[in-house]
Amino acid sequence: MYAGRLNLRTLIVGEEAGGLIATTTLVENYPGFVSIPGGKLAERLLEHAKHYGVELIEERVEEIRQNCNVFEVLTSSGSRYEAKSVILATGTVHRKLPAKNAEKFEGRGVYYCALCDAPLFRDRKVAVVGGGDGAAKEALLLAEYAEKVYILCRDEGLHAEPPNLRKIEENPRIEIINHTNVVEILGEERVSGVLMQRQGREERLEVEGVFVAIGGIPRSELARRLGVEVNEKGEVVTDKQARTNLAGVFAAGDVTAGGFRQAIISVAEGVTAAYSAYRYLTSEYVETRRCNGEP
Amino acid sequence: MYAGRLNLRTLIVGEEAGGLIATTTLVENYPGFVSIPGGKLAERLLEHAKHYGVELIEERVEEIRQNCNVFEVLTSSGSRYEAKSVILATGTVHRKLPAKNAEKFEGRGVYYCALCDAPLFRDRKVAVVGGGDGAAKEALLLAEYAEKVYILCRDEGLHAEPPNLRKIEENPRIEIINHTNVVEILGEERVSGVLMQRQGREERLEVEGVFVAIGGIPRSELARRLGVEVNEKGEVVTDKQARTNLAGVFAAGDVTAGGFRQAIISVAEGVTAAYSAYRYLTSEYVETRRCNGEP
Repeated sequence: MYAGRLNLRTLIVGEEAGGLIATTTLVENYPGFVSIPGGKLAERLLEHAKHYGVELIEERVEEIRQNCNVFEVLTSSGSRYEAKSVILATGTVHRKLPAKNAEKFEGRGVYYCALCDAPLFRDRKVAVVGGGDGAAKEALLLAEYAEKVYILCRDEGLHAEPPNLRKIEENPRIEIINHTNVVEILGEERVSGVLMQRQGREERLEVEGVFVAIGGIPRSELARRLGVEVNEKGEVVTDKQARTNLAGVFAAGDVTAGGFRQAIISVAEGVTAAYSAYRYLTSEYVETRRCNGEP
Repeated sequence: MYAGRLNLRTLIVGEEAGGLIATTTLVENYPGFVSIPGGKLAERLLEHAKHYGVELIEERVEEIRQNCNVFEVLTSSGSRYEAKSVILATGTVHRKLPAKNAEKFEGRGVYYCALCDAPLFRDRKVAVVGGGDGAAKEALLLAEYAEKVYILCRDEGLHAEPPNLRKIEENPRIEIINHTNVVEILGEERVSGVLMQRQGREERLEVEGVFVAIGGIPRSELARRLGVEVNEKGEVVTDKQARTNLAGVFAAGDVTAGGFRQAIISVAEGVTAAYSAYRYLTSEYVETRRCNGEP
């Protein structure tokens, strides 16, 4: 939207219009909307961009190549787009729970973001699957609402930061269950529990919600192949102006490092990236940049 | 809103609910709303916060004091509020144009943000008042829409960054008028021009819009008196997590340094500050912190 508003000729190229937020049942934490279906929010953001002449190409990007001072974007349909600047907003994919029916109940009892969906579980029982600090924080947040929160760890304990761990130990609503492997999500229309493997035996646990916190996978393969710097987690490294190490390439949202992963933060980063792209495209540098061998 | 959502007992204390954005006629760059009156947007944000139990106290804050690990907020009515954490979001005031009728036409021909209001002037004549790089950028952005943009500088020339200056010189729509002092905004219902003083003589210039770019003044007096670090421009210094130099004090929005001053960016910074306050309030540090002399 900002790129369009700044009169840049702008294409959005991607497989899924709206990305992850479009798959969220209800968004209650995008400031300005007390409650809005994720798909509707994505639609509004897209409509806003189109209002300023931005076009959407719903194709998977297979490759981005730098050819002198032009970037070539190649898509699944065999199309090729040229741009002087690229903003990477490829997001992450949640690491999926490798359990039976986990996918089936996604958004209907199986969730990936406590801050987004915890309030749905006021006075209910939920499970958090994961053993890291991320799982700990999800559990603590859930315990603000839920009657009971089980943390299901595969190994011998929760590897969380000390203050979080201590708070969990002191919180009577939270219980850690170790050496547990969730093998199936149980339920008919809604989730009613999980089936776990513990020390060779199968056990059932009654919960209405399962929060999966076993990490996210940044979609940074395209970035990496283009020569953009990524950190050890595979996240694109950006500065406060959303610039990457490559001139003309910017990045925003969950694919980047260091941010607090919320829709509103990603939107603001996108705005920053668009403004930085505008400044880049109207700078002396771009205009005077020449290819190798050219005069 | 996020602070409330995170179950923190939260008060908003301030003189003007909504701040600067509430005074903007039409907001067309808050992602999700193609067009919304500024007052309406402010109202929606406030309503969203109240939805999570956040209370609004419409009083001017006279002083914030740190008393051991409690912050005391003293207001104009003589009330006193105690908090374990404070988020400063006091914004800026635009440096006003010291010209006759400038205040009268504010929002109706006199503006302070080209990115916000430039599209209103497609194919019209406008003036930018100011002599720095800020004025240059405002003029360049306005020239994407306006038929003619005059930059009215008080001194001998525009002190802009070289690429911006060159672009202005090459843009036939932009004209710099030096040694000019705007003394009055002319017009009946709407702005029809400005009255300028140039080398001892008075001149009229026909324009429908006047963009004032003579700087903003961060409202950081309270912060400074509390002991919060501000830079040479009077802006509160924060890190990427919206933390200031004082533990428990966070800051967001236009009062802070380094950001691109747009409503959506400030909102995202506010979200970051609320989340950082939550992490601070639930950390080991706060719980174990003792006052001087206490065991």
